[in-house]
Amino acid sequence: MRHLLLRLPKAADLVPALTDLCARENITRGIISLIGALECAEIGYYHQDTHEYAGMTVNEHVEILSGQGNVSLKDGKPFVHLHLVLSRSDGSCIGGHATAGCRIFACEAAILALEGPALVREPDEATGLALWPLA
Amino acid sequence: MRHLLLRLPKAADLVPALTDLCARENITRGIISLIGALECAEIGYYHQDTHEYAGMTVNEHVEILSGQGNVSLKDGKPFVHLHLVLSRSDGSCIGGHATAGCRIFACEAAILALEGPALVREPDEATGLALWPLA
Amino acid sequence: MRHLLLRLPKAADLVPALTDLCARENITRGIISLIGALECAEIGYYHQDTHEYAGMTVNEHVEILSGQGNVSLKDGKPFVHLHLVLSRSDGSCIGGHATAGCRIFACEAAILALEGPALVREPDEATGLALWPLA
Repeated sequence: MRHLLLRLPKAADLVPALTDLCARENITRGIISLIGALECAEIGYYHQDTHEYAGMTVNEHVEILSGQGNVSLKDGKPFVHLHLVLSRSDGSCIGGHATAGCRIFACEAAILALEGPALVREPDEATGLALWPLA
Repeated sequence: MRHLLLRLPKAADLVPALTDLCARENITRGIISLIGALECAEIGYYHQDTHEYAGMTVNEHVEILSGQGNVSLKDGKPFVHLHLVLSRSDGSCIGGHATAGCRIFACEAAILALEGPALVREPDEATGLALWPLA
Repeated sequence: MRHLLLRLPKAADLVPALTDLCARENITRGIISLIGALECAEIGYYHQDTHEYAGMTVNEHVEILSGQGNVSLKDGKPFVHLHLVLSRSDGSCIGGHATAGCRIFACEAAILALEGPALVREPDEATGLALWPLA
């Protein structure tokens, strides 16, 4: 097990920055947790009936109260799956599945890189998502 | 330290599924973090004055933005303590102490199984909860 | 890597209690995750334009749905950076940057103490925050 604890650069796009970092560090199986703040965010909600993601733009400066997720392989490359809880100036919370477009103000990320066989996402018919095989 | 990073099955009941997994894997001391989505949820809020849990039913499809918790021993068996932050289709958040009745749509869970002496929950008079001894 | 999984005492002040614990255990680089409940909370929101924290008092009994953060060095001493998602009796969420004044009702904290060179916070002009050097 390796651990990274690091700062991501201001103005970077959160999910692509994490994905690039994992590719560069050869992390294909890992656990992510992070906090910080975003200049703006793009988050999604997955409609379980229609199997479609709906996107939401958060056009505000927000704290990242919680960023939790993981790294595994999709189409042969590191894929970051990250969910965010964000807060506004009045402390109210909004959140969802993180997509491209979350612009970093400040971000401190921990990645635990795990050993073990490749963990690969494949299409899952019942959910319409790309999921790991059941253990 | 051992780590599990795995998918839990669709339609399973989240807390019992995690508890069964820990029992099967002999995990009696550990840290849990998970993300995913639920078809519906049952969460609780603990009234600190009356020492009673009040339950809430979330009868909606929700994202699991954050699942954080731990595994220890209660009455000689693995006991999972898990708190959830959930989000609705508009990104608004609701959450609480996870109880039985959180039906999984998709769930990716990390469990860090820690070494060390047994960590045992015992009744604590001041809070009315089952807590670990103070370090 | 060392791990702590422990209960913090009732009525203690969350952030100072974590900071004292890290000082006592010589933890200067680590990842924190915790759940529990607070008797009351003091949280902050950082205004990215004016570079000022605005404080909020949460004068209610709340669950800690998520406490995520890290430990590093600031001014030569362990410094805890922690973000909280809290929930009220109706499940609604409020959160922010944890400051002194979060009084514990019950708290179960995990700290992963990481190895590696010192991780030091220095003033960062662009954000007005004390941040780690970029990797």
